[in-house]
Amino acid sequence: MSEVNRQYKLAKRPVGLPKDDDWTYCESEIPSPGDGELLMENHYISLDPAMRGWMNAGRSYIEPVEIGAVMRAGTVGRVVSSKNSRFEAGDYVVGVGGVQSHAISDGKGLVKVDPKLAPLQRYLGTLGMPGMTAYFGLLDITDPKEGETVLVSAAAGAVGSVVGQIARIKGCRAIGIAGGPEKCQYIIDELGYHGAIDYKNDNIREKLKELCPGRVDVYFDNVGGEILDLVLGRLNRGARISVCGAISQYNATGKMQGPSNYLALLVSRARMEGFVVFDYAKRYGEATKALAGWMASGELKSKEHIVEGLKKFPETLNMLFSGANFGKLVLKVSEGRES
Amino acid sequence: MSEVNRQYKLAKRPVGLPKDDDWTYCESEIPSPGDGELLMENHYISLDPAMRGWMNAGRSYIEPVEIGAVMRAGTVGRVVSSKNSRFEAGDYVVGVGGVQSHAISDGKGLVKVDPKLAPLQRYLGTLGMPGMTAYFGLLDITDPKEGETVLVSAAAGAVGSVVGQIARIKGCRAIGIAGGPEKCQYIIDELGYHGAIDYKNDNIREKLKELCPGRVDVYFDNVGGEILDLVLGRLNRGARISVCGAISQYNATGKMQGPSNYLALLVSRARMEGFVVFDYAKRYGEATKALAGWMASGELKSKEHIVEGLKKFPETLNMLFSGANFGKLVLKVSEGRES
Repeated sequence: MSEVNRQYKLAKRPVGLPKDDDWTYCESEIPSPGDGELLMENHYISLDPAMRGWMNAGRSYIEPVEIGAVMRAGTVGRVVSSKNSRFEAGDYVVGVGGVQSHAISDGKGLVKVDPKLAPLQRYLGTLGMPGMTAYFGLLDITDPKEGETVLVSAAAGAVGSVVGQIARIKGCRAIGIAGGPEKCQYIIDELGYHGAIDYKNDNIREKLKELCPGRVDVYFDNVGGEILDLVLGRLNRGARISVCGAISQYNATGKMQGPSNYLALLVSRARMEGFVVFDYAKRYGEATKALAGWMASGELKSKEHIVEGLKKFPETLNMLFSGANFGKLVLKVSEGRES
Repeated sequence: MSEVNRQYKLAKRPVGLPKDDDWTYCESEIPSPGDGELLMENHYISLDPAMRGWMNAGRSYIEPVEIGAVMRAGTVGRVVSSKNSRFEAGDYVVGVGGVQSHAISDGKGLVKVDPKLAPLQRYLGTLGMPGMTAYFGLLDITDPKEGETVLVSAAAGAVGSVVGQIARIKGCRAIGIAGGPEKCQYIIDELGYHGAIDYKNDNIREKLKELCPGRVDVYFDNVGGEILDLVLGRLNRGARISVCGAISQYNATGKMQGPSNYLALLVSRARMEGFVVFDYAKRYGEATKALAGWMASGELKSKEHIVEGLKKFPETLNMLFSGANFGKLVLKVSEGRES
C-alpha cells in the first residue's frame, strides 16, 4: 500500500482535448477517517466519456468539478479503516472515489460488492454505471420490440456493448457502429451483433442501407455528429432515439454540431429523448439482477481494457476520444495488490 | 364564374425563397367531371409553410409536387357539377384542390362543410389542417398538464395561435413567440396568452428567463433555428418538444441549421418528437368537435389574413416566410363571389 495519497486535480477547464497541464498531480498524507467516515483504497478507477463534460463550467445534470478539486471518477476498492457502522475494513466497495489512490467517504452512495462474483473492475463496467446506463437507456427510453432493428453507436464501448447484447437478448436485430475492423469483428463474433459498420473505413450511408433494409427502429446514440445525421435519414416510422451522449462533440472548441437533419423526426414520426442514469438509482437492483443473470447464462459478455498506473491517467483518459480503448477503460491503481 | 381554369404550376424546384419564375401561370378550359367525379370551384386557397417542403425533391412525409403539376394546396369551395353520388352541385367542400380556380375530384379526402356554422375560410384554418395540427401536436405529442408552462413559436400563426389557446384552456401558462409588437399585443389581448416574446425586438434569452421562471415544460416548435437552440437551454426537467416545423430553415440554401444545443435533452431528461397531422385523420372529428365547442363558447378565437386574387399567389405565399401575414393566410380566388 502506498505511503501517500496520490491524486489528480483539475488545474483548469480544458479547451478541446484535455492536455497534461489541465491536471495537477499531487501527493499528500493519507487522511484518516473522522466519525462516520471510512478510508478506502481505490483499486480501479473508471474512465468514462462523461468525465469530459464534468470538466466544463455551466449547467448540466451534475455539478462541474471545481478547479483545484480531485477529479471525479467512479472507483472500486477496499475499505482500509472505518468509523462508519455500515462498513468495515476489508469490505470491497464501489462508489465515486475520484482519481486518487485513497479516498475518505461518509458512505453515501457507496455499495459493497463481492469480488468472488465478478472481477472487481467489472463493477465499473457491465455491473456498474455503464451497465445501468445501457439497461435503462435502452429498455426504458426506447422500449424495443422483438424483431425491431436496434442500431448502436460506440457499439464496442462500455455502454454500447451492453446495449447491443440486451437488444439481441430481447429478440431485436442488433447493428453496431464501431471504429476499425477488429472491433467490428469482435461485436459480431463475441457479442452477437447481427451486423457491424466500421465508421473509420465504411461508407456509413451505404452500410446503413445494406444492414438496415427495413430502416432503424431504435438508435442508441453515444456519438452524435455526422453519424447521428446519417441515422436520422434512415429512421423507420415511429423510431426512438435514446440520447446517451455525443463523444464526437465533447472536445469541440467551437459550437457543437447539432443534427441538421432533425426534421427527419417529423418525416418519420420519431422521437429523440435524453436521460441520466442517476435518475434510475432506485431500480439499479433490477438492472443488476438482469445483467448478472445474463452474464451467468453466458448471454452477456464483458471486456475491460485495463491500463496500469495512476500516473498514466491524463493520457489514458484521452484514449476514449480517439477510440483507442477496446472495452470498458479502467485505470488500475495499486500495482499488483488487487484481486 | 371565370370562363377558364386558372392555375399555378410548379415550374422548377426553388433554391431558397421561391421566385416568380419557379411558377408557371396557365389558363385552360374548365374540365368536365367524368364518372364518379365532380367539378369544384375553389373559393379560398390555403397558404401554408408546409408547401415550401412539398416543392423540394426527396423523401418526406408526402410525395413532392411534380415539376409541371398544379401546386398542391388545401382549398375550400363549392361543387359546380357532380357525377359522384356523395356530392351534389351547391355543396361546400374542403379538400386539397390545389392552386387553381377549378378542380376535378373523385371525392376522396373531400369533406362537406357548412358555411352557416363558420365562414368558409375558417375551414382552412382553425377548423381545418392548422387546427388539427395544433390539437394533436399539442395534446397527443406533449400531453400538457395543468400549471405547466407551454411555449409556442410562430404564436400568432395559423397553428401556433390555436396551440396557445388550447394550452390556456387546459390550464397551462401559455407563452408565445411572435414577430413584432402588434402580434405580441394581439396574442395577449385577444388570444389570452400569459406572455409574449417579440423575436424581432426582444433579447429572446432574457425574455425566456423572465417569462418562464420555472423553465419550459412544453415547447411547440414551428420555427427551428436559433430560437430552438435558446429554448433547449431553458427546458425544465421532463420537458417535451413537439416538432411541427422549422419555417426559419425552409429556404436555407446550404445545410439546415440543426439544434447545436440538443444535448440539453439529456441534461433536462427531455424529448423531442415529430408528427404528421395526416396520421390523425380518423380522429379529426374529435378535434373538430372540441375546437368548434371552444369557438362557440368564445374561448377560442381565429383570425384569417385574406389576400384577394389568384394571380397574387407567388408573392402571397412568400409572406409566410417574412412573417408579413397576420393570422391564417388564405388566398381568395373568385373575386366577390364567395360568402
